[in-house]
Amino acid sequence: MFDRGLLSPGAVGLDAAVSDEAMLAALVAAELGLVRAWSAVGALDAAEAEAIAAAFGGSAGDGAGGSAGDGAGGSVGDTAGDGAATAGIDVGALASAAVDGGNPVIPLVGLLKQTLPEALRPWVHRGATSQDILDTALMLVSRRAVDTVLASLAEAEAALAAFAIEHRDVVAAGRTLAQHAVPTTVGARAAGWLTGIRRASARLRGLSLPAQLGGAAGTRASFAELSRRQALGDAAAATLPTRFAEALGLDAAETVWHTDRWPVTELADALTQSLDALGKFAGDVVTLSRTEIGELSAGAGGSSSAMPQKSNPVAAVLIRSAALRAPQLAATLHLCATLAADERPAGAWHAEWPTLRELLRLSLGASSHAARLSRALRVDRDAVARNLAATGGLILAERLSIVLTPLVGAERVAALIAAAGRGAGETAAARPGADHPSAPDTASAGLAALIRDLPEAADVDVDALLDPRAYTGDATAAVDGATGGASA
Amino acid sequence: MFDRGLLSPGAVGLDAAVSDEAMLAALVAAELGLVRAWSAVGALDAAEAEAIAAAFGGSAGDGAGGSAGDGAGGSVGDTAGDGAATAGIDVGALASAAVDGGNPVIPLVGLLKQTLPEALRPWVHRGATSQDILDTALMLVSRRAVDTVLASLAEAEAALAAFAIEHRDVVAAGRTLAQHAVPTTVGARAAGWLTGIRRASARLRGLSLPAQLGGAAGTRASFAELSRRQALGDAAAATLPTRFAEALGLDAAETVWHTDRWPVTELADALTQSLDALGKFAGDVVTLSRTEIGELSAGAGGSSSAMPQKSNPVAAVLIRSAALRAPQLAATLHLCATLAADERPAGAWHAEWPTLRELLRLSLGASSHAARLSRALRVDRDAVARNLAATGGLILAERLSIVLTPLVGAERVAALIAAAGRGAGETAAARPGADHPSAPDTASAGLAALIRDLPEAADVDVDALLDPRAYTGDATAAVDGATGGASA
Amino acid sequence: MFDRGLLSPGAVGLDAAVSDEAMLAALVAAELGLVRAWSAVGALDAAEAEAIAAAFGGSAGDGAGGSAGDGAGGSVGDTAGDGAATAGIDVGALASAAVDGGNPVIPLVGLLKQTLPEALRPWVHRGATSQDILDTALMLVSRRAVDTVLASLAEAEAALAAFAIEHRDVVAAGRTLAQHAVPTTVGARAAGWLTGIRRASARLRGLSLPAQLGGAAGTRASFAELSRRQALGDAAAATLPTRFAEALGLDAAETVWHTDRWPVTELADALTQSLDALGKFAGDVVTLSRTEIGELSAGAGGSSSAMPQKSNPVAAVLIRSAALRAPQLAATLHLCATLAADERPAGAWHAEWPTLRELLRLSLGASSHAARLSRALRVDRDAVARNLAATGGLILAERLSIVLTPLVGAERVAALIAAAGRGAGETAAARPGADHPSAPDTASAGLAALIRDLPEAADVDVDALLDPRAYTGDATAAVDGATGGASA
Amino acid sequence: MFDRGLLSPGAVGLDAAVSDEAMLAALVAAELGLVRAWSAVGALDAAEAEAIAAAFGGSAGDGAGGSAGDGAGGSVGDTAGDGAATAGIDVGALASAAVDGGNPVIPLVGLLKQTLPEALRPWVHRGATSQDILDTALMLVSRRAVDTVLASLAEAEAALAAFAIEHRDVVAAGRTLAQHAVPTTVGARAAGWLTGIRRASARLRGLSLPAQLGGAAGTRASFAELSRRQALGDAAAATLPTRFAEALGLDAAETVWHTDRWPVTELADALTQSLDALGKFAGDVVTLSRTEIGELSAGAGGSSSAMPQKSNPVAAVLIRSAALRAPQLAATLHLCATLAADERPAGAWHAEWPTLRELLRLSLGASSHAARLSRALRVDRDAVARNLAATGGLILAERLSIVLTPLVGAERVAALIAAAGRGAGETAAARPGADHPSAPDTASAGLAALIRDLPEAADVDVDALLDPRAYTGDATAAVDGATGGASA
Repeated sequence: MFDRGLLSPGAVGLDAAVSDEAMLAALVAAELGLVRAWSAVGALDAAEAEAIAAAFGGSAGDGAGGSAGDGAGGSVGDTAGDGAATAGIDVGALASAAVDGGNPVIPLVGLLKQTLPEALRPWVHRGATSQDILDTALMLVSRRAVDTVLASLAEAEAALAAFAIEHRDVVAAGRTLAQHAVPTTVGARAAGWLTGIRRASARLRGLSLPAQLGGAAGTRASFAELSRRQALGDAAAATLPTRFAEALGLDAAETVWHTDRWPVTELADALTQSLDALGKFAGDVVTLSRTEIGELSAGAGGSSSAMPQKSNPVAAVLIRSAALRAPQLAATLHLCATLAADERPAGAWHAEWPTLRELLRLSLGASSHAARLSRALRVDRDAVARNLAATGGLILAERLSIVLTPLVGAERVAALIAAAGRGAGETAAARPGADHPSAPDTASAGLAALIRDLPEAADVDVDALLDPRAYTGDATAAVDGATGGASA
Repeated sequence: MFDRGLLSPGAVGLDAAVSDEAMLAALVAAELGLVRAWSAVGALDAAEAEAIAAAFGGSAGDGAGGSAGDGAGGSVGDTAGDGAATAGIDVGALASAAVDGGNPVIPLVGLLKQTLPEALRPWVHRGATSQDILDTALMLVSRRAVDTVLASLAEAEAALAAFAIEHRDVVAAGRTLAQHAVPTTVGARAAGWLTGIRRASARLRGLSLPAQLGGAAGTRASFAELSRRQALGDAAAATLPTRFAEALGLDAAETVWHTDRWPVTELADALTQSLDALGKFAGDVVTLSRTEIGELSAGAGGSSSAMPQKSNPVAAVLIRSAALRAPQLAATLHLCATLAADERPAGAWHAEWPTLRELLRLSLGASSHAARLSRALRVDRDAVARNLAATGGLILAERLSIVLTPLVGAERVAALIAAAGRGAGETAAARPGADHPSAPDTASAGLAALIRDLPEAADVDVDALLDPRAYTGDATAAVDGATGGASA
Repeated sequence: MFDRGLLSPGAVGLDAAVSDEAMLAALVAAELGLVRAWSAVGALDAAEAEAIAAAFGGSAGDGAGGSAGDGAGGSVGDTAGDGAATAGIDVGALASAAVDGGNPVIPLVGLLKQTLPEALRPWVHRGATSQDILDTALMLVSRRAVDTVLASLAEAEAALAAFAIEHRDVVAAGRTLAQHAVPTTVGARAAGWLTGIRRASARLRGLSLPAQLGGAAGTRASFAELSRRQALGDAAAATLPTRFAEALGLDAAETVWHTDRWPVTELADALTQSLDALGKFAGDVVTLSRTEIGELSAGAGGSSSAMPQKSNPVAAVLIRSAALRAPQLAATLHLCATLAADERPAGAWHAEWPTLRELLRLSLGASSHAARLSRALRVDRDAVARNLAATGGLILAERLSIVLTPLVGAERVAALIAAAGRGAGETAAARPGADHPSAPDTASAGLAALIRDLPEAADVDVDALLDPRAYTGDATAAVDGATGGASA
Repeated sequence: MFDRGLLSPGAVGLDAAVSDEAMLAALVAAELGLVRAWSAVGALDAAEAEAIAAAFGGSAGDGAGGSAGDGAGGSVGDTAGDGAATAGIDVGALASAAVDGGNPVIPLVGLLKQTLPEALRPWVHRGATSQDILDTALMLVSRRAVDTVLASLAEAEAALAAFAIEHRDVVAAGRTLAQHAVPTTVGARAAGWLTGIRRASARLRGLSLPAQLGGAAGTRASFAELSRRQALGDAAAATLPTRFAEALGLDAAETVWHTDRWPVTELADALTQSLDALGKFAGDVVTLSRTEIGELSAGAGGSSSAMPQKSNPVAAVLIRSAALRAPQLAATLHLCATLAADERPAGAWHAEWPTLRELLRLSLGASSHAARLSRALRVDRDAVARNLAATGGLILAERLSIVLTPLVGAERVAALIAAAGRGAGETAAARPGADHPSAPDTASAGLAALIRDLPEAADVDVDALLDPRAYTGDATAAVDGATGGASA
């Protein structure tokens, strides 16, 4: 019981799909899938296969057994459920037994055979190598975890789309290099989060998660030999991998991937991309909910052990924590891929298992928290407006430059902006003094006055020019584009 | 002149596409692309745009100017060529000037304007922010580099396909965890390399490399304002990004990606995947050309400063060196993506530039060396045969187990294999003594004799059973599948 | 029960020191340490402190309570033992409760208080912030884990020293870029492993693992306020951190390290350095136990699910698997350190916990397997000799060059070596044919004959020249130096 | 001319110490150091050695030659200076020639010999392998770069110490998880930056940067053979490595480190630790100079290509950019260390060179910018005060809890704080309305009134209680401790 989440609060209650129990169930499901594949090519009767399934803990009559065999993607969902077939095997004992051979499949096969009468035992792990079962089981848990992540991302996307629509026209300060730059909108910012998450979702949906059935060195010689011994016909061994994949609801691999580890790295890349997008969203939430900025709040936040007044943006913090870890986990998986030596590497394969699992775990946790956070997100429009006004209109300096430069030249525009900057600074400095009107408006008034003092700008509608609502470009279109154009 | 490749021998002569000169040319091309986009929406005459192009160093009449403007992918190839337009700007001076503002675009704009008459200056960098130009230039050099990488990968694929066909039926020892496991073929192993590289190629080909045109905070407000000032019509600003992408032969981005950095990370992931595959190939070459193994050689290898007899597998070494570095560079790019704060981050954006460039450089070098290595690869069939025989037939233990277990039971098979293993060990130990026949055959003979001693196995054709050529499963089919099925 | 080691066979049974249970015990120990620190500065009676300790599950009368309080390093060893004080708290429930606040300390404090009578409750978590307790608990489990790692490394060092002495004079092929280069010795190679491990051990021993007691933002204002309220005197708050560290057997931090995360990164660096050294050792073992090389074996190896003849180098594989993962985990910890924003970061701190824990886990597993592997390592001296002879004497080419170049010039030496190389190749190619003497000696004889054919080399003792034992430089001295100079 | 810094603005003008030119000079210096070492053990005359030095481009009479030979640490500083000896070799040509052998030393030796008369040529590269020269040259450039980094860090430390003293008593909001927590001081925060940088400096100063002289496979057999041939006596070969190190101003390695790569990884760890500390500092500067926070400014900041009003914190941005990249570069170096196979690895060694160089480059750039930033840092005390007051006194909630809980119980304190929070929120919300006094004071007044309303708190001096200056714990002591206790 090394890890039940005490140090991984972002994943507690969300990572069952990739737990040791789920992994054990997936290993058993993979072994059972192989039994059923052999049955599908005629090596053993369906009744025998179902007897094995029953002995492993699911039966043809119940959901688990049927689901594991019906080839539907949904079946995978059951593999780690309470009723998942694990043949009564204790995870801890199996883990201990895995040390000698370096992987859990070797002892698992023995334990599974013990649940069967002598005559059925040869059908277990028939022709397979440990890697076939372990790689396939990893894809099974990945399949289930990715589906769950996708569901959470879809929730987050829906909530963010609604949020973007709701705040479509709320003009806010846009910030670059941590400084106010030009106006944007709350909706456009949310549309950006949405776009990033959606792109990652598409990549996750497009993944191929194949079963693995290559035999000891990827040649499948054992399957051919066994088929020949049973005179099953030439096609039996050739179609076995496809039957295996079908039995498990996984993609059929075009080629073995013993040492071509793209199924692992493409998965890792897509998961990391989703965590990148979630982390970007969470990071902005953390910044925009800073005490001094206060534009966003995440509903009921985390309490503090020492400071009762605080409302910490816990969901965003936990998402960010996951996003900071993911890239290095993905890097490890790429390294394992390039170090996939010979017909099975001495260490690089083993390093994949916990790394991929942790990456799935982070994705499960972060996507779930993101869905919750997206729904809980609240905007303080007063704070948005206050911040937008904080530079006394200078957030429109780019616009002033565009409009005034043709009239008075670049140098005088720069001088005007510098003068306004000094004024804003002085007023801002005076703010805490407090017995005078709040600073931003004063400063903005100062900028307006400076422009009105320009004879060449006599025709300029200064109020309109300094209205940030008129300088948001296609921010609204971006929201409409991202959310299905609801606004027209 | 910080780096001309002295410490990067794997990239010398191959990385011009991503050098500072190429980057400068791409920055100028991006600025020129914007001029042409404005021209395309009617802001300035085509003649004016071409006058600007001419001033920047390419003219409508020559290849560079035309190429940058004709919207074809091929045009990008010229941007860093000798005739590329760089407006006579000195890279070193520009780099120095970039320090104050933190990026080279700020001083570049000034220098470019100085090449123009006053009247044309306003058309340069019109409405753009530094990030528009820099991101677009990075995509331009990426486009060119990826095309070059793809060409090298295609060469490697062709050579490996030919190699796989040539050695389609050469049976060899398959190795897992560095130990002989079961037979495979030289062709099947090469088909695996080919498959991995091809998968990565497909991913590189599928990349979207979009131009960036978002303005200061991604809203494109400046472009809209400028269009309005010129009364260009509503569509002008809206279509400007597409015109910009067309002028540069880049994809048109559906949305701005100022802080949605998927174009960078998807590129990084695909490059890393290609380096994973190349590194796997190179690693196997290094192993199989070990002095004791000697199955492969890479043609004329590297010499040694101290050991004149050595022929080092230099190309493989350089590829491997690149493959070990790539995953961590990609991790940095993912981190930058998730730390893409606000409307432009304070550091995470800057960290992308040299990191992406180095990753492109590694890919350019490694893919080129891989093409060369693939063509140079030679098989020592005697060594292959010698190694295959090294365990005295025990490399067929799995097959023996399949065939004999039904006859004598698993325990006696295990005992037989153990006995044969002791024999092989003893014989092997005697080998250096040398005045007796070489060991492998003796050992294989020993194994055969042990089987023939089994009364239950009287009907077994022992010679056929111990023939490794008969236990390669679908290795041949794998070659045919990967190379277009030449074998039928 | 997310993780009991099913996917981490390298750590099963070895990682109790860093399990959730151990972490919970360390959290409780940290809270208790604070109670005792307050007691030491006079805030509460020793009897009250011990009543709290008793309520938390250890009492003054038993080992656990006493040990936690006696300030000895050894005390830490008990914190996660079976008798460790965990106040009857369920880890899973605590983990669930940790989600809302983002860390487990917040709910822990409540649970701990519930074990106490009302009057004692104010002494729990007095003045502390969550980070004080969590950081300190991480250092407690780190202290214990590092001590265990050091003990395993010491075992490995002792075994490798004995191994180096035993094989001090066994001449073997030295290999660079995977090719035979010049002779070395088995002992010198082992001395290299030993040196690397020892250097890492020294760094681990030199670590400072400090307690953390900074209060909410590192100012310790709460402790000062509470001391003042009790009129404990000025020194009370000032000495509290030292008393706290003493109570826990940790180093007293000179300064708070809330956001100066060197205690974490220096630990991570030292752990990674030890895994680097262990991985180098394991990688060489894997290579040298390759079927074709066979110089080393690791005693009873791992069995295979499919190939009964194999004896896989499992311990080395598991060590290597850990070594490939460690650098990226350390990178994450460095990132967290540099992103330690404000007075506590929003995510970077949380990302440290599972990452550091996993790094400790890898170290515990790998060092233990390395101790076992070091003891089990066996040399096949015949294989060593056979390989040494494999190039027919050309492994001495550097020596020939040194000796013969003054006599016949560099060109003729190169030609001679090339001729000998062709001869060795031809003979090697003939080897499998088998009815002639084994190749190496023939080739060596060929080289000798070529030298004897040189008139200028008439005075050269060719046999002595071609004796690899005479060209091992200070290999023996390296063994003696590394093992205490047994040879003199 | 791949890279002159266009994409690395943070290093422009600062990275000469690790450029290709510097590397070439260091390679030549290493070869010359070996000549001098041989001379020191009597193999050749000092005059011959100096003739070689003169031919390489430095002579005994000028600084370069003398410096490389005088064994002082300072000598290293000259190796890459304008007068550094590079034997007229063109870096680009050498880089090209390096490709075939995979490293630049092989062609370099030939080029160096060509500068000499026939009789002197045998003294060049005598007995060495490429790795001896390349590893030693890397340590030479590292030595110089680390010294420069240390000088910049010392500047930063001095400036930050002065800054901490200047702002020792300026009370500011402390922030955790991006929310106001409790007060701290500007000085204490700076002391934290200082402490982190100083710790990293100490680690850099404590590094061992050894020369490498191991010969082809680490046994030094060639040196022994050559000494024997010259009858130099037993001690000659044994002392050669020490003489070599002395000639170069490097540490003498106790053991060869061909494949024990701790000198590289310990350097990488220390550099990364320094970048961690600098990045933490820079990150806080970026945050505290946010438009809404405005507590810090970095003097003259970077301009913007689009937004003339902005003053970007460029130095901090560039430092941060470096800090985000360093951990992954260090991870690559650790990977190379653990993959340092055999007696020289096939790729892992080559991957170290550009990676270590880039890490040195980042350190050179970031430390220099940090020195500049530290000196330029300005505090806006009004902004500090305004922010401190932003929660209307609730930043003292922890203190209120300590003081009031004994009087009215925890529940009523929580209720009071919640009520005050609502008040602060309402007032804050009203702020932009603007025709009333600024919010913070109102809110603070509200909190004071709520406390005064508590009958049990009649004796509490509410003004004193709500004075943040009285709740900064040992913040002042931390400044004094970090800066030498100037304050007492």
